[in-house]
Amino acid sequence: MALSGVLAAVLTPFDAQLEPDVPRWVRHCRWLLDNGCSGLAIFGTTSEANSLSVDERARMLEALLAAGVNPAQLLPGTGCCALPDTVRLTKLAVQAGCAGVLMLPPFYYKNLHEEGIYRSFAEVIERVAGVRVYLYHIPQVSQVAITPRLIGRLLRDYPRAVLGMKDSSGDWSNTKAVLDAFDGFEVFVGTEKFLLANLREGGAGCITATANVNAPAIARLFREWQSPQADRMQEELNAVRALFEGRAIAALKAALARFTGESDWRRTRPPLLALPEREEEQLAAALLARGFRLA
Amino acid sequence: MALSGVLAAVLTPFDAQLEPDVPRWVRHCRWLLDNGCSGLAIFGTTSEANSLSVDERARMLEALLAAGVNPAQLLPGTGCCALPDTVRLTKLAVQAGCAGVLMLPPFYYKNLHEEGIYRSFAEVIERVAGVRVYLYHIPQVSQVAITPRLIGRLLRDYPRAVLGMKDSSGDWSNTKAVLDAFDGFEVFVGTEKFLLANLREGGAGCITATANVNAPAIARLFREWQSPQADRMQEELNAVRALFEGRAIAALKAALARFTGESDWRRTRPPLLALPEREEEQLAAALLARGFRLA
Repeated sequence: MALSGVLAAVLTPFDAQLEPDVPRWVRHCRWLLDNGCSGLAIFGTTSEANSLSVDERARMLEALLAAGVNPAQLLPGTGCCALPDTVRLTKLAVQAGCAGVLMLPPFYYKNLHEEGIYRSFAEVIERVAGVRVYLYHIPQVSQVAITPRLIGRLLRDYPRAVLGMKDSSGDWSNTKAVLDAFDGFEVFVGTEKFLLANLREGGAGCITATANVNAPAIARLFREWQSPQADRMQEELNAVRALFEGRAIAALKAALARFTGESDWRRTRPPLLALPEREEEQLAAALLARGFRLA
Repeated sequence: MALSGVLAAVLTPFDAQLEPDVPRWVRHCRWLLDNGCSGLAIFGTTSEANSLSVDERARMLEALLAAGVNPAQLLPGTGCCALPDTVRLTKLAVQAGCAGVLMLPPFYYKNLHEEGIYRSFAEVIERVAGVRVYLYHIPQVSQVAITPRLIGRLLRDYPRAVLGMKDSSGDWSNTKAVLDAFDGFEVFVGTEKFLLANLREGGAGCITATANVNAPAIARLFREWQSPQADRMQEELNAVRALFEGRAIAALKAALARFTGESDWRRTRPPLLALPEREEEQLAAALLARGFRLA
């Protein structure tokens, strides 16, 4: 029943009018599931989800289900700034039978009181029966942290609704503190750099952007994390990941364009930009050198 | 044709279900216009606009127009994270004949390139014929700054669409730099603290949250800014403003509840919280001492 393993933080392709390219996206989702991902974190930071309207996200989810993807493998992001938007997306995910939802806190206002963040989550949980929430901690982007104390309050008051978290802080000591504090709480790290460390401490797996280009190798570490080669595999994952650090979304899209020969993959919605050509050339050379096959 | 004067950054009241209380809001809008405001900046930061769905904002604008408010006095906020949301709200404002729109940049992603912010505004301008944009610079909240260089690029490429800005940075030296750099660009300060300074430098006026509770006095300074009493009036405005600094939205709602006797005004949508009772008592006493009448 519980989610575990490697979930891809799925990229969203756009067409020339900057509309989501749904058929290309559905094909990519299938590729990820066929290449070792146990699930798909659609509509997260890597997906440019906050650059999509609620209607667009609703249509995309519908298209993915219509294409036969198993909702039990889906963890859509549903946390918006506005309560009714979060409630609407969360209801759609629950009605569809998704494994859970990955929920950002409202992220416009800053310097919030913990009580305000608590109430934001509590209102959604109260309004959506049967919701299974994974809290999304990505303070360097959202600027709104989900602290261990807040997790403790939510687990105490909503033990059946709050199942786990994605820790995208990049701060392993925070992940470790949460793992130590909350028994049975499903903790995903937001980067495969900490996949082995997380599994050794009883974590659930990782939800990672790099799966868009390196799913088989990341999934292999999840399957074989107890083997003597695990540390060596982790190092190899880290070396690939390092090629994308800093400009992850644009660089991942550029890599997908190179792998598939589909130039449309390069496109982002503003305010994000495609990778500059020279950086793409360097990235492509580095990927070739590490054994990736370009189209 | 150009906007000027004191625009209220209008608060949004919520009912017990946390829905926008549209009749109460329309009454408040009329009160502001009847008490010296030359216009209404609805759907800004003070309005908790990012806590409202696009549909809610569309319905509220429609209700305000149906109530007979002159659209030439309206400056709705329309900048969302997602391009289609911004385009939709901006089109509604243009179709309604609003004076202009106050446009936040997309605010989820951080450390953006200037080019990405430029394209965000450019895409909206290209897609909405006849739009009149006021750029909304509030970096301490949005974390996405609108620099003088960006303003220069937009003015060069879209001279008929980009009319002015609201500078809510609280940094007068930034306002001054923009006033000096761009002739004819309509600069509103985001606080009446700088109203006199702004008018003396050729600025257009202010767009301020405090107008919700102190509109007549702020409007008087705008009318009489060349009188010998102007500096004294400015000091008095500053003293009232100081009562609200720090927790502006909650404190302004508490004050409105005290002025009107309408307890519902206290309510905010999460993640914001109502003012704690003790702070409200202190605020009420300070307002009484300054000559405000409580219900």
